[in-house]
Amino acid sequence: MNQVIESLLSHRTIRSFRPDPIDEEELDAILEAGTRAATHFQPYSFLVIDDADLLSAIAPYPAPLAILATVDLHRFQQYMALHDAEYPIDSAMNLFLRYWDAVLALQNVVVAAESLGLGTVYIGDAPGMDLHEKLGLPENVLPAGLVLVGHPAQEPPKEPRYRVPLEAVVHRNRYIEPTADQLESWYGRYGETFDERYDGLPEDERAVLTDQGVRNGVQHFCHNVANFYRGVDKGVVENLRRGGFHINDWA
Amino acid sequence: MNQVIESLLSHRTIRSFRPDPIDEEELDAILEAGTRAATHFQPYSFLVIDDADLLSAIAPYPAPLAILATVDLHRFQQYMALHDAEYPIDSAMNLFLRYWDAVLALQNVVVAAESLGLGTVYIGDAPGMDLHEKLGLPENVLPAGLVLVGHPAQEPPKEPRYRVPLEAVVHRNRYIEPTADQLESWYGRYGETFDERYDGLPEDERAVLTDQGVRNGVQHFCHNVANFYRGVDKGVVENLRRGGFHINDWA
Repeated sequence: MNQVIESLLSHRTIRSFRPDPIDEEELDAILEAGTRAATHFQPYSFLVIDDADLLSAIAPYPAPLAILATVDLHRFQQYMALHDAEYPIDSAMNLFLRYWDAVLALQNVVVAAESLGLGTVYIGDAPGMDLHEKLGLPENVLPAGLVLVGHPAQEPPKEPRYRVPLEAVVHRNRYIEPTADQLESWYGRYGETFDERYDGLPEDERAVLTDQGVRNGVQHFCHNVANFYRGVDKGVVENLRRGGFHINDWA
Repeated sequence: MNQVIESLLSHRTIRSFRPDPIDEEELDAILEAGTRAATHFQPYSFLVIDDADLLSAIAPYPAPLAILATVDLHRFQQYMALHDAEYPIDSAMNLFLRYWDAVLALQNVVVAAESLGLGTVYIGDAPGMDLHEKLGLPENVLPAGLVLVGHPAQEPPKEPRYRVPLEAVVHRNRYIEPTADQLESWYGRYGETFDERYDGLPEDERAVLTDQGVRNGVQHFCHNVANFYRGVDKGVVENLRRGGFHINDWA
Protein backbone atom coordinates (compact mmCIF):
# COMPACT_ATOMS: atom_id res chain seq x y z
CA MET A 1 0.00 0.00 0.00
CA ASN A 2 1.40 3.38 -0.94
CA GLN A 3 0.51 6.88 0.25
CA VAL A 4 -1.70 7.59 -2.75
CA ILE A 5 -3.92 4.57 -2.17
CA GLU A 6 -3.90 5.20 1.57
CA SER A 7 -5.07 8.74 0.93
CA LEU A 8 -7.87 7.55 -1.38
CA LEU A 9 -8.98 4.89 1.11
CA SER A 10 -9.07 7.35 3.98
CA HIS A 11 -11.47 9.76 2.21
CA ARG A 12 -13.97 11.38 4.55
CA THR A 13 -16.50 14.00 3.52
CA ILE A 14 -16.20 17.14 5.67
CA ARG A 15 -19.14 19.50 6.04
CA SER A 16 -17.85 21.92 8.68
CA PHE A 17 -14.94 24.26 7.97
CA ARG A 18 -12.85 26.79 9.84
CA PRO A 19 -13.13 30.26 8.27
CA ASP A 20 -9.37 30.53 7.51
CA PRO A 21 -8.62 30.91 3.84
CA ILE A 22 -6.77 28.31 1.79
CA ASP A 23 -3.10 29.07 1.23
CA GLU A 24 -2.74 30.38 -2.34
CA GLU A 25 0.20 28.11 -3.14
CA GLU A 26 -1.75 25.09 -1.97
CA LEU A 27 -4.71 26.24 -4.01
CA ASP A 28 -2.55 26.51 -7.13
CA ALA A 29 -1.10 23.07 -6.44
CA ILE A 30 -4.50 21.39 -6.18
CA LEU A 31 -5.84 23.18 -9.28
CA GLU A 32 -2.70 22.22 -11.18
CA ALA A 33 -3.24 18.62 -10.09
CA GLY A 34 -6.75 18.96 -11.53
CA THR A 35 -5.45 20.00 -14.92
CA ARG A 36 -3.14 16.97 -15.10
CA ALA A 37 -6.10 14.57 -15.38
CA ALA A 38 -6.54 12.93 -18.78
CA THR A 39 -8.44 15.29 -21.07
CA HIS A 40 -9.39 16.30 -24.58
CA PHE A 41 -8.04 19.87 -24.81
CA GLN A 42 -9.27 20.81 -21.31
CA PRO A 43 -12.82 21.86 -22.18
CA TYR A 44 -13.51 22.97 -18.63
CA SER A 45 -13.13 26.01 -16.41
CA PHE A 46 -12.85 26.18 -12.66
CA LEU A 47 -14.68 29.04 -10.99
CA VAL A 48 -12.85 29.57 -7.71
CA ILE A 49 -15.25 31.34 -5.38
CA ASP A 50 -14.17 33.06 -2.20
CA ASP A 51 -16.38 36.15 -2.37
CA ALA A 52 -18.55 36.08 0.76
CA ASP A 53 -21.78 37.09 -0.99
CA LEU A 54 -21.33 34.54 -3.74
CA LEU A 55 -20.45 31.83 -1.23
CA SER A 56 -23.54 32.48 0.81
CA ALA A 57 -25.67 32.36 -2.35
CA ILE A 58 -24.12 29.15 -3.65
CA ALA A 59 -22.84 27.04 -0.77
CA PRO A 60 -25.28 25.20 1.52
CA TYR A 61 -22.69 25.21 4.34
CA PRO A 62 -20.31 27.99 5.42
CA ALA A 63 -16.94 27.41 3.74
CA PRO A 64 -14.00 29.66 2.87
CA LEU A 65 -13.85 28.43 -0.73
CA ALA A 66 -15.95 26.77 -3.38
CA ILE A 67 -14.71 25.38 -6.67
CA LEU A 68 -17.23 25.05 -9.45
CA ALA A 69 -16.13 22.86 -12.34
CA THR A 70 -17.87 23.80 -15.57
CA VAL A 71 -17.91 22.20 -18.98
CA ASP A 72 -16.47 25.15 -20.88
CA LEU A 73 -16.78 24.89 -24.63
CA HIS A 74 -16.94 28.65 -24.93
CA ARG A 75 -13.18 29.13 -24.59
CA PHE A 76 -12.29 26.46 -27.13
CA GLN A 77 -15.05 27.71 -29.44
CA GLN A 78 -13.66 31.26 -29.25
CA TYR A 79 -10.31 29.91 -30.40
CA MET A 80 -12.01 28.00 -33.22
CA ALA A 81 -13.84 31.16 -34.25
CA LEU A 82 -10.51 32.92 -34.76
CA HIS A 83 -9.93 30.35 -37.51
CA ASP A 84 -13.41 30.52 -38.93
CA ALA A 85 -14.17 27.08 -37.53
CA GLU A 86 -16.87 25.73 -35.24
CA TYR A 87 -16.54 23.02 -32.63
CA PRO A 88 -19.49 20.54 -32.80
CA ILE A 89 -20.90 21.17 -29.34
CA ASP A 90 -24.45 19.90 -29.72
CA SER A 91 -23.78 16.16 -29.54
CA ALA A 92 -24.69 13.49 -27.00
CA MET A 93 -21.19 12.02 -27.07
CA ASN A 94 -19.70 15.47 -26.67
CA LEU A 95 -21.82 16.13 -23.60
CA PHE A 96 -20.70 12.91 -21.95
CA LEU A 97 -17.05 13.23 -22.80
CA ARG A 98 -16.75 16.89 -21.87
CA TYR A 99 -18.69 16.39 -18.66
CA TRP A 100 -16.28 13.52 -18.06
CA ASP A 101 -13.30 15.83 -18.58
CA ALA A 102 -14.64 18.30 -16.04
CA VAL A 103 -15.38 15.62 -13.44
CA LEU A 104 -11.99 13.93 -13.77
CA ALA A 105 -10.30 17.26 -13.24
CA LEU A 106 -12.43 18.10 -10.20
CA GLN A 107 -11.89 14.70 -8.61
CA ASN A 108 -8.13 15.25 -8.94
CA VAL A 109 -8.61 18.59 -7.19
CA VAL A 110 -10.46 16.83 -4.36
CA VAL A 111 -7.87 14.07 -4.04
CA ALA A 112 -5.06 16.65 -4.00
CA ALA A 113 -6.89 18.84 -1.45
CA GLU A 114 -7.50 15.91 0.89
CA SER A 115 -3.85 14.89 0.67
CA LEU A 116 -2.99 18.32 2.12
CA GLY A 117 -5.33 17.80 5.06
CA LEU A 118 -8.06 20.00 3.61
CA GLY A 119 -11.67 18.92 3.90
CA THR A 120 -14.04 18.72 0.94
CA VAL A 121 -17.69 18.12 0.23
CA TYR A 122 -19.34 17.70 -3.16
CA ILE A 123 -22.56 19.67 -3.60
CA GLY A 124 -24.86 17.78 -5.92
CA ASP A 125 -27.04 20.72 -6.96
CA ALA A 126 -24.59 22.34 -9.39
CA PRO A 127 -25.94 21.03 -12.72
CA GLY A 128 -29.32 22.61 -11.98
CA MET A 129 -28.19 25.86 -10.36
CA ASP A 130 -28.84 29.23 -11.96
CA LEU A 131 -25.25 30.49 -12.01
CA HIS A 132 -24.78 32.13 -15.40
CA GLU A 133 -25.59 35.66 -14.25
CA LYS A 134 -24.07 35.30 -10.78
CA LEU A 135 -20.71 34.21 -12.15
CA GLY A 136 -20.78 35.87 -15.55
CA LEU A 137 -20.76 32.55 -17.39
CA PRO A 138 -21.15 32.90 -21.15
CA GLU A 139 -23.25 30.56 -23.28
CA ASN A 140 -21.63 27.18 -23.99
CA VAL A 141 -20.55 26.93 -20.37
CA LEU A 142 -22.35 24.30 -18.27
CA PRO A 143 -22.11 24.11 -14.46
CA ALA A 144 -20.96 20.54 -13.87
CA GLY A 145 -19.92 20.04 -10.27
CA LEU A 146 -19.35 21.99 -7.11
CA VAL A 147 -17.06 21.25 -4.21
CA LEU A 148 -16.52 23.17 -0.98
CA VAL A 149 -12.97 23.22 0.37
CA GLY A 150 -11.61 24.33 3.72
CA HIS A 151 -9.71 23.42 6.84
CA PRO A 152 -11.87 20.93 8.74
CA ALA A 153 -13.60 22.31 11.84
CA GLN A 154 -14.77 18.83 12.77
CA GLU A 155 -12.89 15.69 13.75
CA PRO A 156 -13.16 13.47 10.66
CA PRO A 157 -15.29 10.38 11.38
CA LYS A 158 -13.06 7.57 12.71
CA GLU A 159 -14.59 4.98 10.44
CA PRO A 160 -14.98 5.53 6.70
CA ARG A 161 -18.58 5.65 5.45
CA TYR A 162 -20.16 2.31 4.73
CA ARG A 163 -19.68 0.93 1.26
CA VAL A 164 -21.26 -2.19 -0.19
CA PRO A 165 -18.68 -5.00 -0.48
CA LEU A 166 -16.51 -5.03 -3.58
CA GLU A 167 -18.31 -8.11 -4.92
CA ALA A 168 -21.48 -6.00 -5.19
CA VAL A 169 -19.98 -3.54 -7.66
CA VAL A 170 -17.39 -5.65 -9.48
CA HIS A 171 -18.36 -8.06 -12.25
CA ARG A 172 -15.80 -10.17 -14.10
CA ASN A 173 -16.38 -10.21 -17.87
CA ARG A 174 -20.15 -10.58 -17.42
CA TYR A 175 -22.76 -8.85 -15.28
CA ILE A 176 -23.98 -11.12 -12.47
CA GLU A 177 -27.54 -10.61 -11.30
CA PRO A 178 -27.63 -10.14 -7.51
CA THR A 179 -29.92 -12.32 -5.39
CA ALA A 180 -32.52 -10.87 -3.02
CA ASP A 181 -30.43 -12.06 -0.06
CA GLN A 182 -27.38 -10.28 -1.41
CA LEU A 183 -29.33 -7.07 -1.99
CA GLU A 184 -30.68 -7.17 1.57
CA SER A 185 -27.25 -7.81 3.02
CA TRP A 186 -25.69 -4.97 0.97
CA TYR A 187 -28.41 -2.35 1.36
CA GLY A 188 -30.27 -3.51 4.47
CA ARG A 189 -28.56 -0.97 6.71
CA TYR A 190 -29.73 1.82 4.41
CA GLY A 191 -33.22 0.37 4.52
CA GLU A 192 -33.11 0.47 8.33
CA THR A 193 -32.12 4.13 8.27
CA PHE A 194 -34.90 4.89 5.80
CA ASP A 195 -37.37 3.05 8.06
CA GLU A 196 -36.20 4.95 11.13
CA ARG A 197 -36.71 8.25 9.36
CA TYR A 198 -40.15 7.25 8.13
CA ASP A 199 -41.23 5.86 11.50
CA GLY A 200 -39.97 9.02 13.20
CA LEU A 201 -42.22 11.33 11.17
CA PRO A 202 -45.06 13.17 12.96
CA GLU A 203 -48.27 11.18 12.58
CA ASP A 204 -50.06 13.78 10.46
CA GLU A 205 -47.14 13.97 8.05
CA ARG A 206 -47.08 10.20 7.72
CA ALA A 207 -50.84 10.21 7.09
CA VAL A 208 -50.35 12.59 4.14
CA LEU A 209 -47.63 10.33 2.74
CA THR A 210 -49.75 7.23 3.21
CA ASP A 211 -52.44 8.89 1.14
CA GLN A 212 -49.83 9.37 -1.59
CA GLY A 213 -48.97 5.66 -1.47
CA VAL A 214 -45.82 6.08 0.60
CA ARG A 215 -46.05 3.29 3.17
CA ASN A 216 -42.52 2.32 4.19
CA GLY A 217 -39.04 3.77 4.64
CA VAL A 218 -37.68 2.74 1.24
CA GLN A 219 -40.72 4.19 -0.52
CA HIS A 220 -40.24 7.35 1.53
CA PHE A 221 -36.62 7.61 0.41
CA CYS A 222 -37.58 7.19 -3.26
CA HIS A 223 -40.39 9.71 -2.82
CA ASN A 224 -37.96 12.31 -1.40
CA VAL A 225 -35.37 11.73 -4.12
CA ALA A 226 -38.07 12.01 -6.79
CA ASN A 227 -39.22 15.31 -5.26
CA PHE A 228 -35.67 16.62 -5.29
CA TYR A 229 -35.17 15.65 -8.94
CA ARG A 230 -38.56 17.08 -9.92
CA GLY A 231 -37.62 20.40 -8.36
CA VAL A 232 -34.28 20.75 -10.11
CA ASP A 233 -34.65 18.96 -13.45
CA LYS A 234 -35.97 22.06 -15.22
CA GLY A 235 -32.84 23.94 -14.18
CA VAL A 236 -30.63 21.12 -15.45
CA VAL A 237 -32.30 21.09 -18.85
CA GLU A 238 -32.08 24.90 -19.03
CA ASN A 239 -28.38 24.75 -18.14
CA LEU A 240 -27.88 22.14 -20.83
CA ARG A 241 -29.52 24.45 -23.36
CA ARG A 242 -27.32 27.35 -22.31
CA GLY A 243 -24.35 24.99 -22.42
CA GLY A 244 -25.13 24.33 -26.09
CA PHE A 245 -26.79 20.92 -25.69
CA HIS A 246 -30.25 20.59 -27.22
CA ILE A 247 -31.10 17.19 -25.83
CA ASN A 248 -34.72 17.18 -27.04
CA ASP A 249 -33.48 17.17 -30.62
CA TRP A 250 -31.19 14.19 -30.19
CA ALA A 251 -32.48 11.03 -31.85
CA MET B 1 4.48 18.73 -2.24
CA ASN B 2 3.39 15.29 -1.07
CA GLN B 3 3.39 11.92 -2.85
CA VAL B 4 -0.29 12.16 -3.77
CA ILE B 5 0.09 15.46 -5.60
CA GLU B 6 3.37 14.30 -7.14
CA SER B 7 1.60 11.23 -8.46
CA LEU B 8 -1.24 13.32 -9.91
CA LEU B 9 1.17 15.77 -11.52
CA SER B 10 3.21 12.99 -13.10
CA HIS B 11 0.23 11.45 -14.91
CA ARG B 12 1.09 10.10 -18.34
CA THR B 13 -1.32 8.27 -20.61
CA ILE B 14 0.07 4.86 -21.64
CA ARG B 15 -1.15 3.15 -24.79
CA SER B 16 1.17 0.16 -25.01
CA PHE B 17 1.08 -2.62 -22.42
CA ARG B 18 2.97 -5.80 -21.65
CA PRO B 19 0.71 -8.86 -21.77
CA ASP B 20 1.33 -9.81 -18.10
CA PRO B 21 -1.82 -9.82 -16.01
CA ILE B 22 -2.45 -7.41 -13.15
CA ASP B 23 -1.82 -8.85 -9.72
CA GLU B 24 -5.20 -9.69 -8.17
CA GLU B 25 -4.36 -8.02 -4.87
CA GLU B 26 -3.37 -4.85 -6.66
CA LEU B 27 -6.54 -5.02 -8.70
CA ASP B 28 -8.65 -5.30 -5.55
CA ALA B 29 -6.77 -2.38 -4.01
CA ILE B 30 -7.40 -0.07 -6.95
CA LEU B 31 -11.07 -1.07 -7.20
CA GLU B 32 -11.45 -0.56 -3.46
CA ALA B 33 -9.88 2.90 -3.87
CA GLY B 34 -12.52 3.52 -6.53
CA THR B 35 -15.34 2.74 -4.16
CA ARG B 36 -14.02 5.19 -1.57
CA ALA B 37 -14.84 8.19 -3.78
CA ALA B 38 -17.73 10.36 -2.60
CA THR B 39 -21.00 8.81 -3.77
CA HIS B 40 -24.77 8.55 -3.39
CA PHE B 41 -25.23 4.84 -2.57
CA GLN B 42 -22.71 3.68 -5.22
CA PRO B 43 -25.00 3.56 -8.24
CA TYR B 44 -22.26 2.12 -10.44
CA SER B 45 -20.77 -1.21 -11.40
CA PHE B 46 -17.29 -1.97 -12.65
CA LEU B 47 -17.06 -4.57 -15.39
CA VAL B 48 -13.53 -5.94 -15.10
CA ILE B 49 -12.66 -7.47 -18.44
CA ASP B 50 -9.76 -9.84 -18.96
CA ASP B 51 -11.37 -12.30 -21.35
CA ALA B 52 -9.31 -12.23 -24.55
CA ASP B 53 -12.28 -12.26 -26.95
CA LEU B 54 -14.06 -9.49 -25.07
CA LEU B 55 -10.88 -7.42 -24.88
CA SER B 56 -10.29 -7.68 -28.60
CA ALA B 57 -13.90 -6.64 -29.25
CA ILE B 58 -13.83 -3.70 -26.88
CA ALA B 59 -10.28 -2.36 -26.55
CA PRO B 60 -8.70 -0.39 -29.38
CA TYR B 61 -5.20 -1.34 -28.14
CA PRO B 62 -3.97 -4.69 -26.83
CA ALA B 63 -4.14 -4.62 -23.03
CA PRO B 64 -4.37 -7.29 -20.33
CA LEU B 65 -7.31 -5.63 -18.60
CA ALA B 66 -10.13 -3.19 -19.22
CA ILE B 67 -12.36 -1.65 -16.60
CA LEU B 68 -15.73 -0.38 -17.74
CA ALA B 69 -17.48 1.91 -15.28
CA THR B 70 -21.23 1.83 -15.71
CA VAL B 71 -24.00 3.88 -14.18
CA ASP B 72 -25.85 1.00 -12.54
CA LEU B 73 -29.31 1.85 -11.30
CA HIS B 74 -30.45 -1.73 -11.86
CA ARG B 75 -28.88 -3.04 -8.64
CA PHE B 76 -30.33 -0.28 -6.47
CA GLN B 77 -33.68 -0.58 -8.23
CA GLN B 78 -33.76 -4.32 -7.55
CA TYR B 79 -33.31 -3.56 -3.87
CA MET B 80 -36.07 -0.94 -4.02
CA ALA B 81 -38.35 -3.46 -5.74
CA LEU B 82 -37.98 -5.81 -2.75
CA HIS B 83 -39.71 -3.04 -0.78
CA ASP B 84 -42.32 -2.26 -3.38
CA ALA B 85 -40.56 1.03 -4.16
CA GLU B 86 -39.17 2.57 -7.33
CA TYR B 87 -36.10 4.76 -7.66
CA PRO B 88 -36.80 7.80 -9.92
CA ILE B 89 -34.28 6.98 -12.65
CA ASP B 90 -35.64 9.06 -15.54
CA SER B 91 -34.41 12.49 -14.47
CA ALA B 92 -31.86 14.90 -15.92
CA MET B 93 -30.34 15.56 -12.50
CA ASN B 94 -30.19 11.86 -11.79
CA LEU B 95 -28.32 11.24 -15.03
CA PHE B 96 -25.72 13.86 -14.21
CA LEU B 97 -25.23 12.89 -10.60
CA ARG B 98 -25.08 9.17 -11.21
CA TYR B 99 -22.74 9.61 -14.17
CA TRP B 100 -20.72 11.77 -11.81
CA ASP B 101 -20.61 8.97 -9.22
CA ALA B 102 -19.32 6.51 -11.81
CA VAL B 103 -16.66 8.91 -13.12
CA LEU B 104 -15.36 9.84 -9.66
CA ALA B 105 -14.98 6.18 -8.83
CA LEU B 106 -13.19 5.39 -12.08
CA GLN B 107 -10.81 8.33 -11.72
CA ASN B 108 -9.88 7.05 -8.27
CA VAL B 109 -9.17 3.67 -9.88
CA VAL B 110 -6.90 5.36 -12.42
CA VAL B 111 -5.08 7.43 -9.80
CA ALA B 112 -4.58 4.32 -7.65
CA ALA B 113 -3.39 2.23 -10.62
CA GLU B 114 -0.86 4.85 -11.68
CA SER B 115 0.47 5.09 -8.13
CA LEU B 116 1.35 1.38 -8.42
CA GLY B 117 3.29 1.97 -11.64
CA LEU B 118 0.52 0.63 -13.85
CA GLY B 119 -0.28 2.42 -17.10
CA THR B 120 -3.79 3.55 -18.02
CA VAL B 121 -5.62 5.02 -20.98
CA TYR B 122 -9.20 6.26 -21.07
CA ILE B 123 -11.18 5.11 -24.11
CA GLY B 124 -13.72 7.76 -25.02
CA ASP B 125 -16.08 5.55 -27.00
CA ALA B 126 -17.74 3.79 -24.05
CA PRO B 127 -20.97 5.83 -23.77
CA GLY B 128 -21.85 4.93 -27.38
CA MET B 129 -20.68 1.32 -27.44
CA ASP B 130 -23.11 -1.57 -27.88
CA LEU B 131 -22.12 -3.55 -24.78
CA HIS B 132 -25.37 -4.75 -23.23
CA GLU B 133 -25.40 -8.18 -24.92
CA LYS B 134 -21.62 -8.64 -24.87
CA LEU B 135 -21.40 -8.11 -21.13
CA GLY B 136 -24.88 -9.21 -20.09
CA LEU B 137 -25.81 -5.74 -18.87
CA PRO B 138 -29.45 -5.46 -17.79
CA GLU B 139 -31.64 -2.45 -18.51
CA ASN B 140 -30.96 0.59 -16.26
CA VAL B 141 -27.23 0.09 -16.71
CA LEU B 142 -25.42 2.69 -18.78
CA PRO B 143 -21.82 2.29 -20.04
CA ALA B 144 -20.11 5.40 -18.72
CA GLY B 145 -16.36 5.16 -19.13
CA LEU B 146 -13.71 2.69 -20.13
CA VAL B 147 -10.09 2.49 -19.11
CA LEU B 148 -7.38 0.06 -20.16
CA VAL B 149 -4.87 -0.94 -17.50
CA GLY B 150 -1.59 -2.79 -17.73
CA HIS B 151 2.12 -2.78 -17.12
CA PRO B 152 3.61 -0.18 -19.47
CA ALA B 153 5.50 -1.59 -22.45
CA GLN B 154 6.65 1.91 -23.37
CA GLU B 155 8.89 4.38 -21.63
CA PRO B 156 6.47 7.03 -20.32
CA PRO B 157 7.00 10.38 -22.08
CA LYS B 158 9.64 12.42 -20.20
CA GLU B 159 7.57 15.58 -20.32
CA PRO B 160 3.94 15.65 -19.25
CA ARG B 161 1.45 16.47 -22.03
CA TYR B 162 0.95 20.16 -22.70
CA ARG B 163 -1.71 21.89 -20.70
CA VAL B 164 -2.91 25.46 -21.13
CA PRO B 165 -1.66 27.66 -18.28
CA LEU B 166 -3.67 27.66 -15.09
CA GLU B 167 -4.88 31.21 -15.75
CA ALA B 168 -6.72 29.90 -18.83
CA VAL B 169 -8.94 27.54 -16.84
CA VAL B 170 -9.21 29.30 -13.48
CA HIS B 171 -11.55 32.25 -12.90
CA ARG B 172 -11.85 33.99 -9.56
CA ASN B 173 -15.46 34.69 -8.60
CA ARG B 174 -16.34 35.79 -12.12
CA TYR B 175 -15.74 34.39 -15.60
CA ILE B 176 -13.15 36.43 -17.48
CA GLU B 177 -13.48 36.54 -21.24
CA PRO B 178 -10.17 35.58 -22.88
CA THR B 179 -8.61 37.87 -25.48
CA ALA B 180 -7.70 36.69 -28.98
CA ASP B 181 -4.01 36.97 -28.07
CA GLN B 182 -4.50 34.79 -25.03
CA LEU B 183 -6.43 32.20 -27.03
CA GLU B 184 -3.68 32.05 -29.64
CA SER B 185 -0.98 31.73 -27.01
CA TRP B 186 -2.87 28.96 -25.19
CA TYR B 187 -4.06 26.95 -28.18
CA GLY B 188 -1.67 28.00 -30.95
CA ARG B 189 0.43 24.88 -30.63
CA TYR B 190 -2.67 22.76 -31.17
CA GLY B 191 -3.51 24.90 -34.18
CA GLU B 192 -0.06 24.23 -35.60
CA THR B 193 -0.52 20.49 -35.19
CA PHE B 194 -3.93 20.71 -36.85
CA ASP B 195 -2.39 22.68 -39.71
CA GLU B 196 0.43 20.16 -40.15
CA ARG B 197 -2.08 17.34 -40.38
CA TYR B 198 -4.22 19.22 -42.85
CA ASP B 199 -1.26 20.30 -44.96
CA GLY B 200 0.07 16.74 -44.95
CA LEU B 201 -3.09 15.29 -46.51
CA PRO B 202 -2.89 13.88 -50.05
CA GLU B 203 -3.97 16.55 -52.54
CA ASP B 204 -7.11 14.72 -53.70
CA GLU B 205 -8.26 14.24 -50.13
CA ARG B 206 -7.74 17.91 -49.42
CA ALA B 207 -9.66 18.81 -52.56
CA VAL B 208 -12.68 16.83 -51.31
CA LEU B 209 -12.46 18.62 -47.96
CA THR B 210 -12.12 22.01 -49.63
CA ASP B 211 -15.37 21.29 -51.49
CA GLN B 212 -16.99 20.66 -48.11
CA GLY B 213 -15.79 24.04 -46.86
CA VAL B 214 -12.84 22.66 -44.88
CA ARG B 215 -10.00 25.03 -45.70
CA ASN B 216 -7.59 25.06 -42.77
CA GLY B 217 -6.25 22.85 -40.00
CA VAL B 218 -8.61 24.03 -37.27
CA GLN B 219 -11.62 23.55 -39.54
CA HIS B 220 -10.28 20.10 -40.39
CA PHE B 221 -10.02 19.22 -36.70
CA CYS B 222 -13.61 20.36 -36.05
CA HIS B 223 -14.77 18.47 -39.13
CA ASN B 224 -13.17 15.24 -37.87
CA VAL B 225 -14.56 15.62 -34.36
CA ALA B 226 -18.02 16.32 -35.81
CA ASN B 227 -17.76 13.16 -37.92
CA PHE B 228 -16.78 11.13 -34.89
CA TYR B 229 -19.70 12.47 -32.86
CA ARG B 230 -22.13 11.96 -35.74
CA GLY B 231 -21.06 8.33 -35.99
CA VAL B 232 -21.54 7.53 -32.33
CA ASP B 233 -24.33 9.80 -31.09
CA LYS B 234 -27.08 7.36 -32.03
CA GLY B 235 -25.41 4.72 -29.88
CA VAL B 236 -25.14 7.15 -26.96
CA VAL B 237 -28.84 8.03 -27.13
CA GLU B 238 -29.74 4.33 -27.41
CA ASN B 239 -27.58 3.54 -24.38
CA LEU B 240 -29.29 6.36 -22.49
CA ARG B 241 -32.67 4.84 -23.32
CA ARG B 242 -31.55 1.38 -22.15
CA GLY B 243 -30.06 3.05 -19.08
CA GLY B 244 -33.53 4.38 -18.22
CA PHE B 245 -33.04 7.98 -19.41
CA HIS B 246 -35.62 9.27 -21.89
CA ILE B 247 -33.93 12.52 -22.73
CA ASN B 248 -36.32 13.47 -25.51
CA ASP B 249 -39.13 13.75 -22.98
CA TRP B 250 -37.25 16.08 -20.66
CA ALA B 251 -38.55 19.62 -20.70
